[in-house]
Amino acid sequence: MTDQTLKNAASGVLSLEAYSPGMPIEELQRRLGVSNAIKLASNENPLGPSAKVRAALAASVAQDNLALYPDGSGHRLKKKIAALHDIALDRITLGNGSNDIIELLGRVFLGPDRAALYSAHAFAVYEIITQAQCARAVVVPARSASDAQPYGHDLAGFAQALQANADVALVFIANPNNPTGTVLAPQDIEAFLKKVPPQVIVALDEAYYEYMDPALRGDTRAWLDRYPNLIVFRTFSKAYGLAGLRVGYSLSSVALADVLNRVRQPFNNNSMALLAAEVALDDQDYVQRSVELNTRERARLSEALRGMGLTVLPSQANFLAIGFGRDAKPVHQGLLEQGVIVRPIASYQLPHYLRVSIGTEAENDRFLAALRKVLAA
Amino acid sequence: MTDQTLKNAASGVLSLEAYSPGMPIEELQRRLGVSNAIKLASNENPLGPSAKVRAALAASVAQDNLALYPDGSGHRLKKKIAALHDIALDRITLGNGSNDIIELLGRVFLGPDRAALYSAHAFAVYEIITQAQCARAVVVPARSASDAQPYGHDLAGFAQALQANADVALVFIANPNNPTGTVLAPQDIEAFLKKVPPQVIVALDEAYYEYMDPALRGDTRAWLDRYPNLIVFRTFSKAYGLAGLRVGYSLSSVALADVLNRVRQPFNNNSMALLAAEVALDDQDYVQRSVELNTRERARLSEALRGMGLTVLPSQANFLAIGFGRDAKPVHQGLLEQGVIVRPIASYQLPHYLRVSIGTEAENDRFLAALRKVLAA
Repeated sequence: MTDQTLKNAASGVLSLEAYSPGMPIEELQRRLGVSNAIKLASNENPLGPSAKVRAALAASVAQDNLALYPDGSGHRLKKKIAALHDIALDRITLGNGSNDIIELLGRVFLGPDRAALYSAHAFAVYEIITQAQCARAVVVPARSASDAQPYGHDLAGFAQALQANADVALVFIANPNNPTGTVLAPQDIEAFLKKVPPQVIVALDEAYYEYMDPALRGDTRAWLDRYPNLIVFRTFSKAYGLAGLRVGYSLSSVALADVLNRVRQPFNNNSMALLAAEVALDDQDYVQRSVELNTRERARLSEALRGMGLTVLPSQANFLAIGFGRDAKPVHQGLLEQGVIVRPIASYQLPHYLRVSIGTEAENDRFLAALRKVLAA
Repeated sequence: MTDQTLKNAASGVLSLEAYSPGMPIEELQRRLGVSNAIKLASNENPLGPSAKVRAALAASVAQDNLALYPDGSGHRLKKKIAALHDIALDRITLGNGSNDIIELLGRVFLGPDRAALYSAHAFAVYEIITQAQCARAVVVPARSASDAQPYGHDLAGFAQALQANADVALVFIANPNNPTGTVLAPQDIEAFLKKVPPQVIVALDEAYYEYMDPALRGDTRAWLDRYPNLIVFRTFSKAYGLAGLRVGYSLSSVALADVLNRVRQPFNNNSMALLAAEVALDDQDYVQRSVELNTRERARLSEALRGMGLTVLPSQANFLAIGFGRDAKPVHQGLLEQGVIVRPIASYQLPHYLRVSIGTEAENDRFLAALRKVLAA
């Protein structure tokens, strides 16, 4: 009976493995009975939403407009984003997290006769949407483990693969990349953009952009005017501290934004998410403080881990990929038993690594203490 | 340049017209400078979220878990839904509104070689997802204007169309239907379910279920066990008052829920939405009061409108489709100028009708007064 029910389901969906998120704290408590657990598994801002965002949300709860559907056009939020980037309103697409934008791109540009191109060890959602759309994946081998950007994107390899695969309709570049934390030189990105045919869409995923050293950042905004096939996305889930609320957005040409907005769900962001993002965008001081905390703790944690003889990939993001030189599964399990949730990345073909999000100083201390205990056992 | 950029875009998307939502109050204020406007255009619960929901949301704003990603499995909400319907957890799929569920179904079951079947004058999102998936639409003519359920679904017509179109993979039934408010007899629905081949998915959209006279409701829960190709969806956007927060869900077989969850965005509901729905589900008294207000005002408003010589389609939902016997556009415009936003439904092939949501007593009075003024002008 069941087989019959799914007879018409898309083949790509039937063979799909759903995204495996970081374990929620509640789930660890349900499973292992561990209380007082901390989660350093999903690259959230450990400070969470700013006080201003929390105050605005609290005030909005009492207001009448919560009774109504959200503003599907997200007009007020788009106005703030437009001002921040000096870009026209109709070049912005709002997403229910940037995951939503990735999905919209896949739904418009991928299908059984098309391919998506991305790097090995790149964000899992690129693969998921490619498969869900029954499209072909062209996975470019990453740089070597001994490269200055170990396991990072190899854009020369991207360009070659693009030439060899005429069916590529969509290229994903993550900068910094998750889960490796590696970055690309701006001049390398622009050199690549110059080689991409105009009918191939390049999606530049900048979810972790704010955490990068400003000296390493490219002038994404200028590229958008030069390359109409470029789309850049950002998120409020990381430096802005709104992971619980789900807001991301993209900047692109008007034509590309128009087509994404046709398939966008009319109310993909709820009212509280829209409000939180509006207030968060105005609070750049908070973003700055969050980034400073991350930069400081990223350096301290890296040094401590290297001091323990572990490999730490150089990260420009708010997480570290830590190499143990052996299967990392038992370390992950040991940490769970200590009430510290980190992320195994075996599904990213990095089975000897774990990814840990940079937390507050206290959280990082607790992680280090737990890790020392686990490694000593 | 632009043409080149969209060269690889799906043809269905390029010809798609995006969903046109009810006009937000802010937009009316921006456009016409009208202040103090009321919106009766999107079938929200005029009471909004209950006091219990508002209190829970306010309390949650201060909590640390807002810093983290939502629980992607929605475990706690699913437990409550499972208890309400006496159904297993793994037969539930959570959506970012039931719009999300409709889209997931389309993405799994529709494609260039497949068709979706639905009624004329049915909810616009069925058509949008069909077209976005480049699938074929089989639109079954509705019942006549003089039927007891004018413009309602004709299930005998559905069965015939299903026999004549072997490529149909997905059937949408809305009960009550938006924007007509019409309903189907339970025995007619079950008779139809018996005729549907097991590989054709039947999506029964019960967004307005709670507003129906209990005597008219079918035993959906029992059908779910009898027909593994049936999926039923409900929403928190109507009787539960959470339109601003976006939560819907479906009940189905385990196999069907599993496949939808593979394409579901891992964090499609944000943390505040999940919490609001959990609390709302426990507050059935509030739902009851909301439904009673609706039933009372629906009767009063229908009578007043009929007294004005207008046609009112018999509605089992929280809105009325009002016929003016002529193009309704000028009436719509006149109402906007009076600060009352209702919904034109010309895009539903009902150009002589406007759809008005049942508001509070005061809102309905204001609508009636404005309408009298507009019709007298």
